[in-house]
Formats: sequence, C-alpha cells, structure tokens
Amino acid sequence: MTRLPGADDEKKRRPWGALAVGGVLPLAVIAVIAATVSGDWSKGATGKTSSHGLDTSGHFLLATALILSAARLGGVLAEWVRQPRVVGEICAGLALGPSLFGRLAPDAADWLFPQSVQQLLNGLAQLGLVLFMFGVGRELSGMRLRGAATQALLISQASMLVPFALGTAAAVLLLDYAQDGVHSLAFVLFVGCALSITAFPVLARILTDLGIIRTPVGRLSLFASAVGDGGSWLILAAILAGARGSSPVGLLVNGLAALAITLFYLGPLRRFLVKWSMTGKDKDGTTTMVLLVVLVTGTAALTASIGLHQLIGALLVGVAWPKGNRKAVVAAEHLVSTAASVLLPFFFFGFGLTLDLGALQWGVPSLLALAGLLTLAVVGKVIGPGLVARMTGMPWRPAFTLGVLLNARGLTELVVIQIGYQAGIIDRRLLAILTLVALITTAMTSPMLSLFGLKPDSAPSDAAESSEEAELVGTGSTERG
Amino acid sequence: MTRLPGADDEKKRRPWGALAVGGVLPLAVIAVIAATVSGDWSKGATGKTSSHGLDTSGHFLLATALILSAARLGGVLAEWVRQPRVVGEICAGLALGPSLFGRLAPDAADWLFPQSVQQLLNGLAQLGLVLFMFGVGRELSGMRLRGAATQALLISQASMLVPFALGTAAAVLLLDYAQDGVHSLAFVLFVGCALSITAFPVLARILTDLGIIRTPVGRLSLFASAVGDGGSWLILAAILAGARGSSPVGLLVNGLAALAITLFYLGPLRRFLVKWSMTGKDKDGTTTMVLLVVLVTGTAALTASIGLHQLIGALLVGVAWPKGNRKAVVAAEHLVSTAASVLLPFFFFGFGLTLDLGALQWGVPSLLALAGLLTLAVVGKVIGPGLVARMTGMPWRPAFTLGVLLNARGLTELVVIQIGYQAGIIDRRLLAILTLVALITTAMTSPMLSLFGLKPDSAPSDAAESSEEAELVGTGSTERG
Repeated sequence: MTRLPGADDEKKRRPWGALAVGGVLPLAVIAVIAATVSGDWSKGATGKTSSHGLDTSGHFLLATALILSAARLGGVLAEWVRQPRVVGEICAGLALGPSLFGRLAPDAADWLFPQSVQQLLNGLAQLGLVLFMFGVGRELSGMRLRGAATQALLISQASMLVPFALGTAAAVLLLDYAQDGVHSLAFVLFVGCALSITAFPVLARILTDLGIIRTPVGRLSLFASAVGDGGSWLILAAILAGARGSSPVGLLVNGLAALAITLFYLGPLRRFLVKWSMTGKDKDGTTTMVLLVVLVTGTAALTASIGLHQLIGALLVGVAWPKGNRKAVVAAEHLVSTAASVLLPFFFFGFGLTLDLGALQWGVPSLLALAGLLTLAVVGKVIGPGLVARMTGMPWRPAFTLGVLLNARGLTELVVIQIGYQAGIIDRRLLAILTLVALITTAMTSPMLSLFGLKPDSAPSDAAESSEEAELVGTGSTERG
Repeated sequence: MTRLPGADDEKKRRPWGALAVGGVLPLAVIAVIAATVSGDWSKGATGKTSSHGLDTSGHFLLATALILSAARLGGVLAEWVRQPRVVGEICAGLALGPSLFGRLAPDAADWLFPQSVQQLLNGLAQLGLVLFMFGVGRELSGMRLRGAATQALLISQASMLVPFALGTAAAVLLLDYAQDGVHSLAFVLFVGCALSITAFPVLARILTDLGIIRTPVGRLSLFASAVGDGGSWLILAAILAGARGSSPVGLLVNGLAALAITLFYLGPLRRFLVKWSMTGKDKDGTTTMVLLVVLVTGTAALTASIGLHQLIGALLVGVAWPKGNRKAVVAAEHLVSTAASVLLPFFFFGFGLTLDLGALQWGVPSLLALAGLLTLAVVGKVIGPGLVARMTGMPWRPAFTLGVLLNARGLTELVVIQIGYQAGIIDRRLLAILTLVALITTAMTSPMLSLFGLKPDSAPSDAAESSEEAELVGTGSTERG
C-alpha cells in the first residue's frame, strides 16, 4: 500500500471518518427510507401466491436432482451385481416412467414431473443425445487396425451381416408391428439393423474390466464393432431417407444432398478443423468447445432437414472432428464425458416416459416375438462372428468369446430403436420388445463371459494397466454405449 | 493371434468359406427378403409428412446452433472494441429477441424460435444459470485477504452500502415501477440491492487484462466485491422472503428454515463433502460431477420451496463446496466453464425474449429514471469506496481507480434484476432500465480506467504473468459476471 509520509496520525483517526462515510451514513439513509415506506405492510400481504408452492423452475430443478440421483443409484446397483453401469441407468429411467413409478404412485409422478417440466428436461436430453452421438462418431473413426486385416474385416462383416439377415428374416413375420403407412422394406431392413448394432463404449468398458483390451480378441472385437456399427448407421441412414415416403425425385435429391454433405465434412471441413486447431488462437479452449457444439447441433438440424435423422449429422461431425490436436481432443472428451454423466440420464428418463412396459398386452404373440428376436440377436452375434473367426484360424474358445463380446448392445441400440419409433417405422410394442432385447443382451455379456472363464477379478493387474489403452483408442472418457 | 500348428494350408482356403458364411449368405438372405416385401412401394409413399419440414427436435437443434453462434460472435465483437466478452454476449441475446430480430423479421423469428422450442431452450438456460450461481458462490467464499484488513473491510462496506443507500433513495421516486401488490419496502430495498452489485468474474477478468490483479488496488477491489456481493445476496434473500407476502408466522418459519439450511450446509455438509472428496473412491471423477449437479439443483429446489429464489440455494452450495481437494475443484471448474460457454448463452437468449426494449414507451419519465439510476450507480460505486480508500490513506488516483473497478456489474446484475422481476418486485420497464444500467456500467469500466492511465496494452508482460494469479483465486475458468 502506498502511504504518504508522515500520515500516521491521520491514519489512526481516519478509520472512524471512513466508517461514518462508508457505513453509518448510508445505513442511516436506508433506515429512514425503509421506515418511511414500510407503513403499509398489510397491503402487500395480499399480493402474491403462497410461498410453499414450487413454480416451473423449482419443479424443473427438483426433477433434475431426482433423475440424476436415480440414474447414479441405478448405475451403482448395476456395478454391484457386476453389470455395466449403463444397464442400471437405463433401468432407472424406465422405473421413473409409467412402467413403475407412474403405476405405483400416479399422483406423485404427476406432481414431480408435470408436462411443463418434461419439455424443459427434454432440452437437456436432446443436447445430451447429440453429444453422445458425436462421441460414437469419434470412436468409429478413431479405430486403427494393427495386423490381421483380412481376418478382422471378415469377422466385422459377419458380426454385422449375420444378425442383420436373421433380423430381416424375423421381421417378415412381425409386419404387424410396423407403424401404419411405413413401407414393409423399410421396416424389415430396420429390424435387421436393430439386431446388428454393437455398443462400442460398453464393449470397451467390459474389455477394460476384464483386462483383455490389449489381447487379439479384445482388439478384434473393438475393430469389428466399429466397422459393423459404421455399416449399420449407413444402412439406417438409407432406411430413414426412404421411410419418409418422399417421391423418387425427392429421395434422389435428399440422397445427393446427404452425399455432398458427407463428402464436404470428411474432406474440406475436416482439413479446415485440423488446420484451425493447430493455430493455437483459442487460448482458453472455450471457442473450440462452442465450435464443437455449434457444429454438432447445426449439422444435426441440417441432416434432419433433408430427411435423415438429426443424430446421423451429429455422428458425422464426430467422424470429421480432428483427433491429433490436443485442444480439440480435450474439448471433445470434456463435452462427451459431461454429456454422458449429466445429460444422458434425461434421455433415459424421456425414453422411460414414452414406454409403459406394463400397459402393453403381453400376450403370447408379443412374448413369442420377444423370445424369437432375443434368440436371433444372440445367435447371430455369437455364432456368426464366432464361426468366421474359427474358419480363419482362431481356436474355438477365443472365437466364441469374441462373439459373446459383440453381443452387448447397450445404449446405442436404445438410440437406434428410438429413431425407428420416431421415424414412424416400428410401433410402440416393438419399441418395448427391442428395449428388452437391448437390456438383456447387454446384461448377459458378463455372465456368458464367465462361462468362458473370463472374470473381472481374474486379472486385476492387467485391468489397471489396460485402462491406459482404453484412453488411447478414445474410449476412456465414457463407459456408456 | 494364437494359431494351431500346421494350419497354414487351411488358412489360405478358409477366407473364402468365411466370406461365404459371414458375407455372401446373409447378404443373399437380406436381398431375397427385401425383394419379397418391396412390391408395394407406392403404398408407403402416402404415409408420412414431407421430408423438408423440421420437427421440434430439428428446430431445437437449429436454434441451439444459432444462439451459440450469435453469443460467440457478440463476444468476439466485444473483445474487438476492448470490452468484456460478456457485454457482447448479453447484447447478442437481446438482439435475437423482440428488441431487434423479432422487430425486423417477425416471421423468421417465429419460425426459428417457435414456442415449443423456447421451452426446450429454457431447460438449458435454467441449468446454466444454477451452475453459474454455484460458481459465484465458490468465488465469494474463495477470497482470502492478505494484510490491511481494516482498510479492506471499510472499503468493502462502503462499496456496498453507499450505492445501496443511493438506490433506496432513488427508489422512493420510482414506486410507480413496482409491480402491483408488492410491498414498497421490498421494492425500495431491491432497487438499492440492484445498484450495490459488483460482478466479481468480470472484475477479475479486467484486472487480469490490465495486469494489475496482484497490486494492492487489484486485490482490494476483488476482496471488496466479494464481501459486498455476499452482503447484497443476503439482503436480497431477506427481501425475497418478505416480498412473497406471507403471513408473519410463515415468514418466521421460512426464515428459520433458511437459517437451518445455511447452518447445515456450511457446517456438517461442508465437512462431509471435504471428507468424502478425500477418500478417493470416485475413480473417474464422474460421481463428483453428478453429486455437484444433484446438490446444486436439489438445494435450488429446496430454497425455492421455502420462498427464497432457487439461485440462492445454488449460491449456497458454491460456498459450501470443498476448495482444497483436486477432484472437487476439477469437477467444479469443468462444470462452471462448460455452463459459462455452452449453457449461459441460452439464459441471455431467454432474457432477451422477455425484454422488448423498443416496445417500452421511452418517454421523459423513463429516460429520467434511466439517467438518474445510472448516475447514482456510477457515483455510488466510484465516489463511495474511492472516498473511503482516500480517507484510510490511499492516494487519490488508486483510490478512484478502485471505485471505477467496482462499478462493473455485468451478468451478476442481470441475474439479480431477473430475480426481482420474476418475484414480482419490479415491473418490465424497470427491468429494461436496470438492464441498460448493467450494460452501460460494465461497458464504461475500460474507457474510465484509460482516463486513469490504465490500458491493457500498457502492461503486456504483467498480464501474462498475472493470469496465473487469476487461476489461484478461482476465476480463471470463466470470464463472465
């Protein structure tokens, strides 16, 4: 503090003056004014509503806290029974909806989650979902194959095409579950697509927990899921373009637009992003973060406008986003992990709201459809790639371990079937059936692996080591899929 | 890859078998099924709506991309004219609302931001706002004073009480701008409160840019703004409790509840959080992040239910959140910086939607009120603390530099006046007037400092050094206030 020389005397006296000017005087002014205007207190008492009711904002915040707590509780319970966390989080979302909570306590559910609040929560879910899909896109393009290319490609195509074929075959018998007005071809292909999905992030998490992410089987399963899912998303995009039932000319225009957008994103835009992220202009990294969100949401809106689903656009940005630059990678992992932890539970909640598992008449046909689709999903994913792996020289045991790993469908499957439901392809009953297929195939992965002698506890030191590996392939930041 | 010995011959032949099983066969199945069901393509064409219309999700994503782009553009333009970024972002929010965009192109505004989409965007704004307030709470409690305690406290109280007193005095003449049914005392105190706010984060940013954050004036201004704003929020809480017009008994119950909550959060809960964050149970940090969001939203709902504003609860969690543990600090900065960059622009947008600056009849009374409040706001913040600083031994020039610094109100002021508007204290006209006061006082800080010989370019090396210091006091992650 700069002080004037010889000002010590003054200094001792001045605090009181300063207190008077800065404290007592203004307080006196406030007190006099308050006394002047406070004569009519009783008048004010009639004004506003009761203080114990929550307004929309308050309800929204309460619902936010509840949904996040329930999701985390579900995740912890799932880990406790040696299941991927996402299985518990999805179940928590279903439990908060009409399937359980709304059935047991409909009044409480209406009070906690009124219609006006559901819209606010939906905003969080939508943002979380496009950021999740951005993360899926990053993972698909981030895979690098080391050695055994022919074998890996053969296994990848089998892991996608075999369940796809079984799904389309089954779908012919399930045409009753298509929504009105949708073309049978779109429906049949969609069901095939739904069975062919593997959840890359859940798979990476399981491999890390088992300590086998660095083994040939681990690497192969990750590669196969990335290639297979890439193919499934392409087919899904084609189905959506067709399912909207435009004229052939409209379809052609939309298809060409989609092609042009894809080429632009993977060519010039990708090069621009790489170049831009190298310049180092963005000192605090916030511009990169905002650019990412703007690109993801803007592209999502763009693809939605040409008849593809918005999530395809978000996926495309993930594929195009630079991988080599530290700032770009940090921004992406920052947003994807925040979205996975804090925003995706609202998607599970919204999903649970649309799905009343109990209200569906679970008659013999539905149960048969569930049993059939579940069997085909498991057989297609386990036998198809397993057989091909065996035929290309892998011993039986790792070959079928691979198949079991590729059977985890997780969250990615949920996203796919919700897209199909929203696009008017599958009806509410098939949505419920495929939700159960997704949950059951994900939940059965760990127990089935135990049958092959693989248990999380059997390789604790490996697991710690290999979690670094998971970071390298870009999956360390999220355990969802 | 484990291979059986002598299996080389087989290996060369088998790929074709594998290709047949995993690729050709399933493709053939899919092709046959597709051909079977695709006879009735024309039927499907009548089903769904046109492919070029965006549904609500598409509109939401488009609006998200637009709002974030506009905010970033505003921020860049503001920095270009040597203003804090937040001034540009607020202006961008106002420009997208009925004040500018809605006036120039009402049809385009309706199409881009339909009512259904505004609700979705509002969810993002609400979450951003509570996380911002959490950050404000952290900063208030993170201040440590080094030396000159008496002087610092005297300046702090003057920086809060002098503009407060001037605001209450002016408010007596402005009772016409109170909402119907609100008590005059609440209104008068609220206007005082609104003038007494300083924006801590904007202040820290300006100090860093000027390279004076380590000087006595820099430290003193930060301390004074933290203490002063703490006091202002306490008074605001009391006003809100009273303004809702409950019965005296209800007020007493709510007041006791607020006291109990505060004591619980700053005592047992704070100790629990510190202890919990030390255990290291949360390996990937996501549990800490979810815990933070649940605490912030849950507490916000709790304080809203006892008649205080939800943002007071979010502030309280910020004060109670542990500061010493790395994981807790990382989670907090992660979320606060994401909220500041990606979510707060939606608050500015929502704020801009409620405020039509042009539709207010800017007659002589409104302009007089604006001029008067603006003058009192500046005089109170500059003269009050400046005089007290001078009286406690500081030379004239740094004393008034301090006053000018404390005059930046920024985003914090916007939050306060929106609370007052929502709580039914001030009307729409005074909301507009105080918004302009907030913008003008923030924007005038840099030019006024130039008058005192302080320019960002005059100390470039200092500025680089002192940005570390800004991190130390916990303000490096956000430049908003």
